Amino acid sequence: MHLKAPEHQVAGHIAKDGKPGPLVDDKGRFFKPLQGDSRGEIEVMFYESFSSNTQVPDNIRRYFPEYHGTQAVDGSDGAAMIVLENLLSKYSKPSVMDVKMGSRTWYPEASEEYIQKCLRKDKGTTTVSSGFRISGFEVYDHKELSFWKPNRKLLNGIKVDGVRLALRKFVSSNTLSNTSSKPDSAFVSSVYGGSKGILTQLLELKTWFENQTFYHFNSCSILMVYENDSILKGDVDDVQAQVKLVDFAHVHDGNGVIDHNFLGGLCSLINFIRDIVQNPDESSAEN
Amino acid sequence: MHLKAPEHQVAGHIAKDGKPGPLVDDKGRFFKPLQGDSRGEIEVMFYESFSSNTQVPDNIRRYFPEYHGTQAVDGSDGAAMIVLENLLSKYSKPSVMDVKMGSRTWYPEASEEYIQKCLRKDKGTTTVSSGFRISGFEVYDHKELSFWKPNRKLLNGIKVDGVRLALRKFVSSNTLSNTSSKPDSAFVSSVYGGSKGILTQLLELKTWFENQTFYHFNSCSILMVYENDSILKGDVDDVQAQVKLVDFAHVHDGNGVIDHNFLGGLCSLINFIRDIVQNPDESSAEN
Repeated sequence: MHLKAPEHQVAGHIAKDGKPGPLVDDKGRFFKPLQGDSRGEIEVMFYESFSSNTQVPDNIRRYFPEYHGTQAVDGSDGAAMIVLENLLSKYSKPSVMDVKMGSRTWYPEASEEYIQKCLRKDKGTTTVSSGFRISGFEVYDHKELSFWKPNRKLLNGIKVDGVRLALRKFVSSNTLSNTSSKPDSAFVSSVYGGSKGILTQLLELKTWFENQTFYHFNSCSILMVYENDSILKGDVDDVQAQVKLVDFAHVHDGNGVIDHNFLGGLCSLINFIRDIVQNPDESSAEN
Repeated sequence: MHLKAPEHQVAGHIAKDGKPGPLVDDKGRFFKPLQGDSRGEIEVMFYESFSSNTQVPDNIRRYFPEYHGTQAVDGSDGAAMIVLENLLSKYSKPSVMDVKMGSRTWYPEASEEYIQKCLRKDKGTTTVSSGFRISGFEVYDHKELSFWKPNRKLLNGIKVDGVRLALRKFVSSNTLSNTSSKPDSAFVSSVYGGSKGILTQLLELKTWFENQTFYHFNSCSILMVYENDSILKGDVDDVQAQVKLVDFAHVHDGNGVIDHNFLGGLCSLINFIRDIVQNPDESSAEN
């Protein structure tokens, strides 16, 4: 089995200081190391529960990575890894964005120290103000014919206007490293809009979140992906826009209550993207 | 002008330590003292903005108290008071519940001390877990033929199951002070259900909150009211169930973002009430 580090990871843990990072094989599988502090166990428990939960409708199941159990992997000193679908294996030149959901990333049962640490970051980013924060993104630049990734520290410091700009850059064709150029929002209708677009998918997820009380998806991310190769080949309507939920190391039992924290953030993200779909030519939309 | 203290106040400030409380007249008006620390000014600013905001649809405006400006009132040492519609003046025997909305009652611009104070209370009540907390309620007991109000301290300590129980007690006819008796949920369909019921009204409000980015209703309450006199007279379908938003001392500009904090809590409240409407005979509904 030949394993290598994934090419287009925009957020989350990577191999560092001797700790293993995620790996991918050439058969469309993604190997994720179990995180410490019981987070790995919680993520495995979530995948086990979710994959056997017959009350999750099929149209919702497709927004989650396929789960293939856990496996000891040679490349990571024999440690067990979660085996998942590699969400990007079908993409040749993917633009990817990771959006961490919710107006808080902590949960009531956590330690006071953990809550205060999360709260500081939630207040410092757009988590509290907007109900989500952009953890990272990578876009294919159609002028430079290469991938562009914003500086992580700059991205962490953005406010609401920065979120609007980033969500436009994500669907633009022009030189993105040039901060004085306005994003052209060239792919708004094919990526965000339409019956297969990201907005439609987010609205379908929203309907489920208005009712489901199984899981509280604390500190979970929405991954948005689309294909740039189709655009380069002139087929702008075949961008394979896709929404997926990822990172379940802090999922808790819903205890009969809906996940209002995730849902509120999802409604907010929907509103940002709907604004762009309805006003593709404006750099920002008013009330 | 003859003014007196309102009869059925279930939450909020009352006259205490020489500070004036709210007053009502016999013409259907409610006089609310301006709160200190700029909260009074913020509430007046909200009412001035809201009453002149032509983009608020009429079907939404009816969920807010009518505003009649401010006025110096003799009964309160000549201090200015906000003059509002008395929401209960048309009711003879009202059952009333005050639900403080949102999974946080603080806002990012507040002082660290204020945030930590709110956070402690939010974690200690159902605010964080359920996206709202029941601040107070008063129900007409059809067996005892008198009003019953739960102990405020006990109410503050309830968890998710206590919220379910309180929302059932609110629409029950049997002796509520007897904690061993199960609420009979006798008025579920007439108060919560139906085309004029509370669930329909909450869903209408939700549609607006999914789009409006004018206001963030921090620490605002939803008041639910219905008439018991109609029930005593045998007309169970004329309970005049009503939802109103109250308490705008912490409303902020939405800055182009929806109020995901209020909306998340509203969706959660809707789910609790929908569970009861769909399972009127069960004491608790599973997923």
